[in-house]
Amino acid sequence: MMTMKLYHRPDCPFCWKVRLFLQEENIKLEEVCVDLGETHPDVVALNPNGTVPVLVDGDVVLGESAVIIEYLADKFPGSSLMKGSPSQRAQIRQLHYDSDHKLGKIIFPYIKQIRESEQHKASDDLLKKTSEAWAREQKKLTRTLGEKAFFNKEFSVAECALIPRFALALAYGLTLNEDDQNLKQWFYRCVKRPSFLDTLPQALPAIDEMVKF
Amino acid sequence: MMTMKLYHRPDCPFCWKVRLFLQEENIKLEEVCVDLGETHPDVVALNPNGTVPVLVDGDVVLGESAVIIEYLADKFPGSSLMKGSPSQRAQIRQLHYDSDHKLGKIIFPYIKQIRESEQHKASDDLLKKTSEAWAREQKKLTRTLGEKAFFNKEFSVAECALIPRFALALAYGLTLNEDDQNLKQWFYRCVKRPSFLDTLPQALPAIDEMVKF
Repeated sequence: MMTMKLYHRPDCPFCWKVRLFLQEENIKLEEVCVDLGETHPDVVALNPNGTVPVLVDGDVVLGESAVIIEYLADKFPGSSLMKGSPSQRAQIRQLHYDSDHKLGKIIFPYIKQIRESEQHKASDDLLKKTSEAWAREQKKLTRTLGEKAFFNKEFSVAECALIPRFALALAYGLTLNEDDQNLKQWFYRCVKRPSFLDTLPQALPAIDEMVKF
Repeated sequence: MMTMKLYHRPDCPFCWKVRLFLQEENIKLEEVCVDLGETHPDVVALNPNGTVPVLVDGDVVLGESAVIIEYLADKFPGSSLMKGSPSQRAQIRQLHYDSDHKLGKIIFPYIKQIRESEQHKASDDLLKKTSEAWAREQKKLTRTLGEKAFFNKEFSVAECALIPRFALALAYGLTLNEDDQNLKQWFYRCVKRPSFLDTLPQALPAIDEMVKF
């Protein structure tokens, strides 16, 4: 049987999401790390966008993280990360979509500015705008989570998508809403799982330096 | 049994995609039309983004077209529009994703400028840039389609997503690549289906005015 291969950048939230999925499902494959800004010839040849993640499984080549996750959940139908009724699966997909498209848009310009500025700082304006939007998103997630331990009762693709966003936000100086205790507990619950520790990018500080448990 | 309800704008490609799916699957629901620019109080109450489509099915409220499609395919498991092996389903999802996120980004600024300009025209620069990108995307799709009648052999979610993009592009004056005969035939095949004629927005010209068959 051919080994699957994943091209990824460890601190890319889309890639990290896929690696959390693989780790939680105990799916083994060959990993090829790509650095930020690196033009990897395989990636360029495989994916017209030149972006990671890229999954190669025999003839199947997939270059969008959301499509990769659905593919893996289809291919390994015992997967516990997409399980439930159609409405539960829709809620997982809605959270996955919002994490990829909305949380990403809020946090990414801020992280990019820090990475690219000489002082490794964002402007006060951008910090304020990002912090406010990030706090509002946490409020929305708190309402969706309610009293549950995880968004779909058990750890799911929703957590695979959201946890890298949260970890990156904290690593770059944003904070968890003090009032949203259930969401904080949810985050602590996730980052203590072996899958998080095993996939945490080396470039990020240890999570206990980001958050006081 | 409660009737499902869909809030939609007929000439929105995300909404049209969902309606093609419903029509092809013969799924009946209550439709509520929303005009361009209209702030419908139900939509604002149901969807924090205030955008359509919104699907309501009892307690389930979904405000992202891709999530709605996956939900309907899950809820009606006999669905023929998402069928096949994991790799076939991944290809459908990849085309669906690219149609929503890439084709949309290429065509939408051009359509918006035509809609909003006094002369109902885009600038020469934007027309040129859009035409070139649109031609390149057709080339890519031609390679993916190959000799097949449809992207997944039979009509699928890939067509539900792509056909509204194509029809809108043509309605606003873009053209089909003369050389890409298989793709042209594919388009003709799709627009002659009852589902296309039944869902064609009144605001658009009849398809035989857009394309010479």
